[in-house]
Amino acid sequence: MTPLNATPEWQSLSADRTAIEHQSIAGLFDQDPDRFADFSITLDGLLLDYSKQPMSRDVRERLLALARARDVEGQRDAMLTGGRINRSEDRAVLHTALRVPAGVPGWADASITEDVATTRSRMAGLARAIRDGQRTGATGKPIEHVINIGIGGSDLGPRLVLEALAPVADGPDVHFVANVDGVELQQAMAACDPERTLVLVVSKSFGTVETMTNAYEAMAWLRRGVPADEVLARQVLAITANLDRVQALGLDPELALPMRDWVGGRYSLWSAVGFSIMLGIGPAAFEALLEGAHGMDRHFAEAPLEANMPVMLGLVSVLNATLLERRSQAVVPYTERLGRLPAYLQQLLMESNGKSVDTDGKAVDLPTAAAVWGQTGTPGQHAFFQALHQGTDVVPVDFVGVARPVADEKGDPLELTANLFAQGQALMEGRADEGLSTMQRCPGNRPSNTLLLRRLDARSLGALIALYEHRAFVEAAIWGINAFDQFGVELGKGLADDLKPIIAGGLEPTGLDSSTAGLIARYHDWRG
Amino acid sequence: MTPLNATPEWQSLSADRTAIEHQSIAGLFDQDPDRFADFSITLDGLLLDYSKQPMSRDVRERLLALARARDVEGQRDAMLTGGRINRSEDRAVLHTALRVPAGVPGWADASITEDVATTRSRMAGLARAIRDGQRTGATGKPIEHVINIGIGGSDLGPRLVLEALAPVADGPDVHFVANVDGVELQQAMAACDPERTLVLVVSKSFGTVETMTNAYEAMAWLRRGVPADEVLARQVLAITANLDRVQALGLDPELALPMRDWVGGRYSLWSAVGFSIMLGIGPAAFEALLEGAHGMDRHFAEAPLEANMPVMLGLVSVLNATLLERRSQAVVPYTERLGRLPAYLQQLLMESNGKSVDTDGKAVDLPTAAAVWGQTGTPGQHAFFQALHQGTDVVPVDFVGVARPVADEKGDPLELTANLFAQGQALMEGRADEGLSTMQRCPGNRPSNTLLLRRLDARSLGALIALYEHRAFVEAAIWGINAFDQFGVELGKGLADDLKPIIAGGLEPTGLDSSTAGLIARYHDWRG
Repeated sequence: MTPLNATPEWQSLSADRTAIEHQSIAGLFDQDPDRFADFSITLDGLLLDYSKQPMSRDVRERLLALARARDVEGQRDAMLTGGRINRSEDRAVLHTALRVPAGVPGWADASITEDVATTRSRMAGLARAIRDGQRTGATGKPIEHVINIGIGGSDLGPRLVLEALAPVADGPDVHFVANVDGVELQQAMAACDPERTLVLVVSKSFGTVETMTNAYEAMAWLRRGVPADEVLARQVLAITANLDRVQALGLDPELALPMRDWVGGRYSLWSAVGFSIMLGIGPAAFEALLEGAHGMDRHFAEAPLEANMPVMLGLVSVLNATLLERRSQAVVPYTERLGRLPAYLQQLLMESNGKSVDTDGKAVDLPTAAAVWGQTGTPGQHAFFQALHQGTDVVPVDFVGVARPVADEKGDPLELTANLFAQGQALMEGRADEGLSTMQRCPGNRPSNTLLLRRLDARSLGALIALYEHRAFVEAAIWGINAFDQFGVELGKGLADDLKPIIAGGLEPTGLDSSTAGLIARYHDWRG
Repeated sequence: MTPLNATPEWQSLSADRTAIEHQSIAGLFDQDPDRFADFSITLDGLLLDYSKQPMSRDVRERLLALARARDVEGQRDAMLTGGRINRSEDRAVLHTALRVPAGVPGWADASITEDVATTRSRMAGLARAIRDGQRTGATGKPIEHVINIGIGGSDLGPRLVLEALAPVADGPDVHFVANVDGVELQQAMAACDPERTLVLVVSKSFGTVETMTNAYEAMAWLRRGVPADEVLARQVLAITANLDRVQALGLDPELALPMRDWVGGRYSLWSAVGFSIMLGIGPAAFEALLEGAHGMDRHFAEAPLEANMPVMLGLVSVLNATLLERRSQAVVPYTERLGRLPAYLQQLLMESNGKSVDTDGKAVDLPTAAAVWGQTGTPGQHAFFQALHQGTDVVPVDFVGVARPVADEKGDPLELTANLFAQGQALMEGRADEGLSTMQRCPGNRPSNTLLLRRLDARSLGALIALYEHRAFVEAAIWGINAFDQFGVELGKGLADDLKPIIAGGLEPTGLDSSTAGLIARYHDWRG
């Protein structure tokens, strides 16, 4: 892989970096009355407006040339057709195969397609039986509560989707437990009747420490609360690639749902990992979620680069994060229902692309993934927006709005929408009226995208999430990195295992730095 | 105010920037076996360990010299004694006066002290009467639910505290409503019995659009659900500086609690704005929260700079954010109970110090507040930590841990704590063992602070929040900016007002950029 810096396409952009940085965005609108039409893309009920970026037509041409030079299209096709593009782990990357509608051929090889169809149909059958009360708990009571125990990708995606679609959730109520601190598990157990609760344990290895710790506790709770020998076999459902461990724990492997090595955790909500979603909103709405994502996949596969939403979103990110070195990005959804989106994107974008070596193992020469963060609007306006408008850094913003809410909300959509659109406008225009003090002025010329959903429903949400997945792909293709491994998380796990016997008190702390040793001593002292 | 760049103290640091950036943190431990003891500070049950920063003793001396040159002590004393240090708004800044224990003199002038004592005693009397059922709803039923309607500082602080202290909350359950999208309000109303609900409306001006929109809706809900004429006067409590509007709306001004102009929203949870906290945990625990904060205030006022926790936390921030230009910072609490801390600090630190002009109105020459973001650990380890370990940026982390949880949690404290300490160790040490591929290696030498609380109780939480308040103060003092205004948020509000008649459909969109006009057109089209 040629270093990005060494490509003529990058060098051309880099040479104009200062001009691009100081490009007046408002000036681009003055020069071109059709800018909005030309710098926005609509797919079904999802609009991306990237016109408020420091991107002239010429700069866009050069970014597209860069995408071609980095063979974004070829890399994309290799992913979609099952190439082993996760080279460091020698795996294919086929989350897109999970959302191919039944009967549509040609998106992956036949064995994958069949596997996906089989799992999806098993999931739907199980979900229906549980939702309509055919499949009960061990004492014959219907399942009214679900506790989903998982962490990272086994938690964030399903949580995002079920929070967003809560108004159409008509199944058992779903509680999520990720952390090993016990707080969420305790809250979930307090809210659930054990005889009416199904516990989902979601872990590819069935050995993730946090997940298994919480699973054992939940299993003990079930055994205490349900007078039936077969309670674990009937009320604990494993979602995993490790059936041996499922059996060893007394769970029913027949009931288990599979995780495959060609789906990474942060791309897995479309798989059996999303079973909690299907239980909550039903198989039909889950299908609609997949259809929305598949529509985005087709668009990503087929649309010319300049009209391709994930490609343009990815190029905007590369422009801001790498060329202009804007090292953090805000995501601000204007609905509480998408309040989890910033946290979800922190994993998707930062775990995928927070890398410093390219696919050949050579150090990259330019910055990769920026920090992603945010809160909902309008509350964010009363919190951190001060820094967006008047801080010393330019922080690009993705605004996310919804034209029609899920349900009839009691709120004021006019107020909400006026604020949503006004913030993008304010960031661009700034304020320098005569008579204002310098403290009151805003520099303006700060970029934002706006994503507008026609409706916050399963279909649009599927498309939105797939859009960001492919944005990560496009970024990685240009940076020359592998978006699908995550070796950086291993070190901390190993060190935690080393510290456990010391903290537990049996082992002398030899060879530790004085900070780690001092923290452990203080912890002992204070824990008593 | 001399520009920071022009001070010899800054220039001395700046000249060594590269050396400081490449200073081996692990090497500092090798050279100095007592580094932890020397680079950590304990106050009551709160420990700050800042030893894993690229700060030698020499660099620390130079940072302290900088603090002296910027007269951090003099600025601090001016704040604590009621100087009108918020110069742009010509106001004193006296949130510290809110937490002076009853009977302790000398922290502000007598009229302020008396005002604080009167309000606190009114709050406590009211809270007791409500909590013990003496003061009922309009139909004589006890108050079991509270809906706190407020946004920004009238929401984030009380929410943080009540989430953190949920296990000791023994009063009515408190629901928070901030956004104008209707989602939270609907959820709150669905969970509450109107006859047993007290609505708090928290707005200094009593004109904040989001808050008043939600307040009107909640008032209509009360009127529908409570068959008593005096329902609003009895069950809606205003927390405001504008009593005229309270009366005009049919509320009881006698019941209202005051907000003062010497307390900014983001510093106001200690005032009547924290009444929801007092209702939830009781006046005694609220006093403990204030005492914890006051303990930190005294320490900030009295401890020598090098042993002063807020000063050192602020200097670490200036070192990372300004000298080394690390433009984002993560905050990772290892307990779900502090899950709201990153959002709270986004407001506290970014709204206070996301500024580009100094107190004289001149442009600052160096970067000020960095972006603050985070999620809880361990879940964050399975989300964005990949980028912390292997990303191209160095992102300083504040880890926050708790030796003893609030209540007996069901979790695994050993696992949690081992991970907490291991992550700081891993960021510092990195991993470069023989035999590892470059993809598996971690560069290390990445800085972090660890804050350890003996116990997550009201007192420690008060100290922790006050610590970060004073960190913001120290940063601002060094940067030469005013941490207490927020002019940057006004522009968006004004533009939103301009857009409302256009979006509502009555007014032609003239003079708008094509993006704003196009978004409005699409919204109309999709809203139908």
